[in-house]
Amino acid sequence: MDSRSNSVNRNTKKNDDDDITQREEALYSVERIFESKEVPSWQNQLTLRAFCVSFILGILFTFIVLKLSLTTGIIPSLNVSAGLLGFFFLKTWTKLLEKSGILKQPFTRQENTVIQTCVVATSGIAFSGGFGSYLFAMSEVAAKQSTEANNAFNIKNPSLGWMIGFLFVVSFLGLFSVVPLRKIMIIDFKLTYPSGTATAHLINSFHTPQGAKLAKKQVKALAKFFSFSFLWGFFQWFFTAGDDCGFASFPTFGLKAYENKFYFDFSATYVGVGMICPYLINISLLLGSILSWGIMWPLIQDRKGHWFPADESPSSLHGLQGYKVFIAIAMILGDGLYNFCKVFGRTLYGLYLQFCSKDEGAVLPVGARPSPPEPSMSFDDQRRTTLFLKDQIPIWVSIVGYVGIAIVSTITLPHIFHQLKWYHIIVIYVFAPVLAFCNAYGCGLTDWSLASTYGKLAIFTIGAWAGASHGGVLAGLAACGVMMNIVSTASDLTQDFKTGYMTLASPRSMFISQIIGTAMGCLISPCVFWLFYKAFPDLGTQGSAYPAPYALVYRNMSIIGVEGFSALPKNCLTLCYVFFIGAIVINGIRDLVGKNKAKYIPLPMAMAIPFYLGSYFAIDMCLGSLILFVWTKINKAKADAFGPAVASGLICGDGIWILPNSILALVGVKPPICMKFLSRNANTRVDGFLNS
Amino acid sequence: MDSRSNSVNRNTKKNDDDDITQREEALYSVERIFESKEVPSWQNQLTLRAFCVSFILGILFTFIVLKLSLTTGIIPSLNVSAGLLGFFFLKTWTKLLEKSGILKQPFTRQENTVIQTCVVATSGIAFSGGFGSYLFAMSEVAAKQSTEANNAFNIKNPSLGWMIGFLFVVSFLGLFSVVPLRKIMIIDFKLTYPSGTATAHLINSFHTPQGAKLAKKQVKALAKFFSFSFLWGFFQWFFTAGDDCGFASFPTFGLKAYENKFYFDFSATYVGVGMICPYLINISLLLGSILSWGIMWPLIQDRKGHWFPADESPSSLHGLQGYKVFIAIAMILGDGLYNFCKVFGRTLYGLYLQFCSKDEGAVLPVGARPSPPEPSMSFDDQRRTTLFLKDQIPIWVSIVGYVGIAIVSTITLPHIFHQLKWYHIIVIYVFAPVLAFCNAYGCGLTDWSLASTYGKLAIFTIGAWAGASHGGVLAGLAACGVMMNIVSTASDLTQDFKTGYMTLASPRSMFISQIIGTAMGCLISPCVFWLFYKAFPDLGTQGSAYPAPYALVYRNMSIIGVEGFSALPKNCLTLCYVFFIGAIVINGIRDLVGKNKAKYIPLPMAMAIPFYLGSYFAIDMCLGSLILFVWTKINKAKADAFGPAVASGLICGDGIWILPNSILALVGVKPPICMKFLSRNANTRVDGFLNS
Repeated sequence: MDSRSNSVNRNTKKNDDDDITQREEALYSVERIFESKEVPSWQNQLTLRAFCVSFILGILFTFIVLKLSLTTGIIPSLNVSAGLLGFFFLKTWTKLLEKSGILKQPFTRQENTVIQTCVVATSGIAFSGGFGSYLFAMSEVAAKQSTEANNAFNIKNPSLGWMIGFLFVVSFLGLFSVVPLRKIMIIDFKLTYPSGTATAHLINSFHTPQGAKLAKKQVKALAKFFSFSFLWGFFQWFFTAGDDCGFASFPTFGLKAYENKFYFDFSATYVGVGMICPYLINISLLLGSILSWGIMWPLIQDRKGHWFPADESPSSLHGLQGYKVFIAIAMILGDGLYNFCKVFGRTLYGLYLQFCSKDEGAVLPVGARPSPPEPSMSFDDQRRTTLFLKDQIPIWVSIVGYVGIAIVSTITLPHIFHQLKWYHIIVIYVFAPVLAFCNAYGCGLTDWSLASTYGKLAIFTIGAWAGASHGGVLAGLAACGVMMNIVSTASDLTQDFKTGYMTLASPRSMFISQIIGTAMGCLISPCVFWLFYKAFPDLGTQGSAYPAPYALVYRNMSIIGVEGFSALPKNCLTLCYVFFIGAIVINGIRDLVGKNKAKYIPLPMAMAIPFYLGSYFAIDMCLGSLILFVWTKINKAKADAFGPAVASGLICGDGIWILPNSILALVGVKPPICMKFLSRNANTRVDGFLNS
Repeated sequence: MDSRSNSVNRNTKKNDDDDITQREEALYSVERIFESKEVPSWQNQLTLRAFCVSFILGILFTFIVLKLSLTTGIIPSLNVSAGLLGFFFLKTWTKLLEKSGILKQPFTRQENTVIQTCVVATSGIAFSGGFGSYLFAMSEVAAKQSTEANNAFNIKNPSLGWMIGFLFVVSFLGLFSVVPLRKIMIIDFKLTYPSGTATAHLINSFHTPQGAKLAKKQVKALAKFFSFSFLWGFFQWFFTAGDDCGFASFPTFGLKAYENKFYFDFSATYVGVGMICPYLINISLLLGSILSWGIMWPLIQDRKGHWFPADESPSSLHGLQGYKVFIAIAMILGDGLYNFCKVFGRTLYGLYLQFCSKDEGAVLPVGARPSPPEPSMSFDDQRRTTLFLKDQIPIWVSIVGYVGIAIVSTITLPHIFHQLKWYHIIVIYVFAPVLAFCNAYGCGLTDWSLASTYGKLAIFTIGAWAGASHGGVLAGLAACGVMMNIVSTASDLTQDFKTGYMTLASPRSMFISQIIGTAMGCLISPCVFWLFYKAFPDLGTQGSAYPAPYALVYRNMSIIGVEGFSALPKNCLTLCYVFFIGAIVINGIRDLVGKNKAKYIPLPMAMAIPFYLGSYFAIDMCLGSLILFVWTKINKAKADAFGPAVASGLICGDGIWILPNSILALVGVKPPICMKFLSRNANTRVDGFLNS
């Protein structure tokens, strides 16, 4: 191992043109460069200093997330920031220790990943805890602002005790459901998880050993696009004073297209994500966009007054929004269920074969099926797969963990929420793994986690089941919380596992880091929320500094939800069936025609995501694809070598900008300018108004 | 000659890496590529077909220019469009003839330049004829809209007869004053004339012979950036519904800076111009911007109420605008006068030496001093200089022409405008060559022609001299016309000579083409204007379809002008003296310290131009410089080879976009969206207004 690494160093000192073969090999291999660096055992990846740093960053990020969810309700992804800040904190720490000569263990990229994972788990709770959404929607403050269902039976005010208890009994479930998903998503399906990949590239670039020439160039490319993307985010910020302001609302294809969410929103993140995602995903997204926002929604909109009340607000689930949310869910569920069954069936079949052939006592876990790295794999993939499969987490751990916690929470939760019955909870826990699978799968394909969408599904089913008269509003909200915790954790942590896969972090150390992170989150988040709650008595009141806008949205959703699926607009359920079956059929066709033809058939999961969100990010991602496509045509070697670095730079730069952006929002610095887009007529009116 | 060209062809067929030396030579030599192509004699460059095409294009462009000057008053430069359309017209023509086998003479780049020159001369008259400004300002319609000086003595209504006569007696003067400037500006001063250079690159690229590999790459680069720049112009258009809308009003550095005209206006043209101009020019422009808009104007603005009436409109010459215009003029005049005297002195000295040494009868003209190409020059420069100096226009032609026409117009003009006396005209004609020199020089440095600024100077001096009681308002306007015609022609045609220099067009054929073009313009423009005037009876009325906004501006300027320099705000004249002397002193220092140090001392001429116009284009140009600078640092060979092509592509693409843009305006298609920039407070108010 050492001899090879020496030869790399020797070669790179030669002329640029001499080491073409060397370079070509290095081109595709990050792990060759890291080969000289020893991977610490999983126990050594878990250091006390890592958890200290994680704790500090966890508190910081919890503050940021909570503040944002109580003000605007829009919470960005903090994965990248966690990776970066983790690096800088611990690097400073180890540098200081190194100088004073008492450094025992060098700082490795695995340790970096452990911190990142832990911080994401901690700050994830601040989001999935629903302090700005479902949880606060239960409070009296939120109830008073609604005309219906504001009786005491549908109210539960926040209190430190039950919040911590609630989080502890629901938050670990997602974690255990992730364990079996891990190998399926990352090794078998080879999903991209663009954010996770980008974070891994970033972490790898921080720890790249000296002397690797191409790696240096890649790091340089990453750094360049990182800076560009960061500065671009910063520049954009200045023009975002107010709603629909700034580049994110740029009606690139005209105002009519903008209304139907067809526009390029200048997001460096999604251009980068598009560069990492396979072409098929991006095309599927675009197709889904055109099908939904280009054809279906306008057609349904025309049925206004027939299919749904014409006076319904645009965000009401009784109206067009209902179609968007539930058709998207139906299609995602169809795709997810198909793939879940496929995997499940295969696993059972594999187990059966194994059981027949050798009668060994120990049943091998799903995540540990003995599939040694294929020789056709690249060196990187081989090495990563080997290490990813080395430290196993036995499947019985995850089954025992899941069932154990499910039992505990089935017993505990009805004590916290009297409106939620034990059979509701059992139903949720039976279906949750499927939904967790769907969300992790979709996120791996497109980088979007649709946790809140699954939460809405829970509101509708459990709320309606409990019934309005039995406190269904509160039951729905609580069910939403349970569901969101599971599916959100599932996608976040599988994303992290992808990072771990690419940085050779042990799955075992990551799992433990996630457990510790989640536990920290279950304590930190309620405490920080409690601080806000006590410090600002008007928390949650519209018009105050902390209006928690989504709390009201969730409560209203739950009020509708108790009416059940009958509350959905006309034909919505029929359309849901059509798309559910359609998704299964398309998947079936994809499997039937074989791999070569399947790459021309769009993925239903990817198609469904823009149904609800709009087309703008699909356009960003297609642009990313286009850039990569053109680049590959011009210079394939360069595109292959630098594409991921450029994409990661774009994603990470924009990701880090979230941090100063959030801090600016926290300290109340507002952007000075609004870049507004008005139609010619509106502009004439506005000019008249401004001049008067 | 032929053997070398063959060797080029043979070499370029080899491997890419083999012909490095060949390439390096070809890198800097366009003329090597064209060496095999014979340059036709100057008589053969002037073809009937060229003038037919010029006539058609001349009419087209006159319509465009007149329509624009009667609606918005803002007239873009049409040089590039003329070159391009000339090519396509004549190329189609010759292709058709070639197919029918009756083509006698192939289409050459020299012929292309002749068309371009002729069209620019023709359409130039539409601008300098002042149909939207000084000329129409004399009419009753304009006079009625002003409270002062609307008596019959200060009115002269348009009429086809006197307009054509007026144009014929004043328009040829500029032409003859250009002749001696030609060699000084292009060979001696080596001025860049960015638009002229870009047009030449475009024309050369059209006519590049087959087989030249690098040239092909350059043409490809030019075409790529041409398309980009064109599409960018097109894209920008959609967002320009209304004033202060679109990318051209992008407050890149904040709204405060925007108010002081510090912003990047996303103009591809000026980024390209900045890439062609030397660094020193761009730095000088930026320094001038900072000195004027950053320091002086805000300081003077603070003196509002003391130095000038606080209630003065921002565009009044009584107020801040007065400082801007006249300080800029003073500085430009100082620089121009210094250089004029330097050149004049040197010429006289040279003539004296020549006269002493050999007592030959014929005094060699200025433009024909026997300065054979220096051997240190590049091949391109040598060849171009040789051809540029081959077909001389004897200086006596220009002197006789200038003096002759001056005498004719001194006799004729007082008959057209009774208010203008013969001594006014003589004074104008004495000083005009200096101002023409200044304008041609400034335009060569920075691509800006400030003809209207010199026109304002004439309004102020002649108007005041004639006096209010003797029809000074009309005299001022007429003087403005005479002056503008000379200085505008001087800069336009020197620009064209630069194109001719780079395309090996004979100066003699260009001169004749300019004469023919000017004559056509003197006939076409009044006729087209007459058409507008008769077709739209409310022409010139504010609020109508053709308000001719600048007519009123010029008339008001003239009404102020009759009060003379005493009408200028306080301390304005003092500041003018300071900057006039400052410009001379800086030039003196530049000459004293020697060439090596002079390149760190800014040019007063370049500094003065943003004084009046604002800083935005200086910022564009500095960006162009920066791009070139970084490019040169990364890859000098590539930057040298492709820089001019990229810059020309940027300039020409944007230039051509003017054509469809103008046509859209002509047919009344308006852009659909306004991209507006509002402060946060204004945005809140506007949102309130729009939602109400």
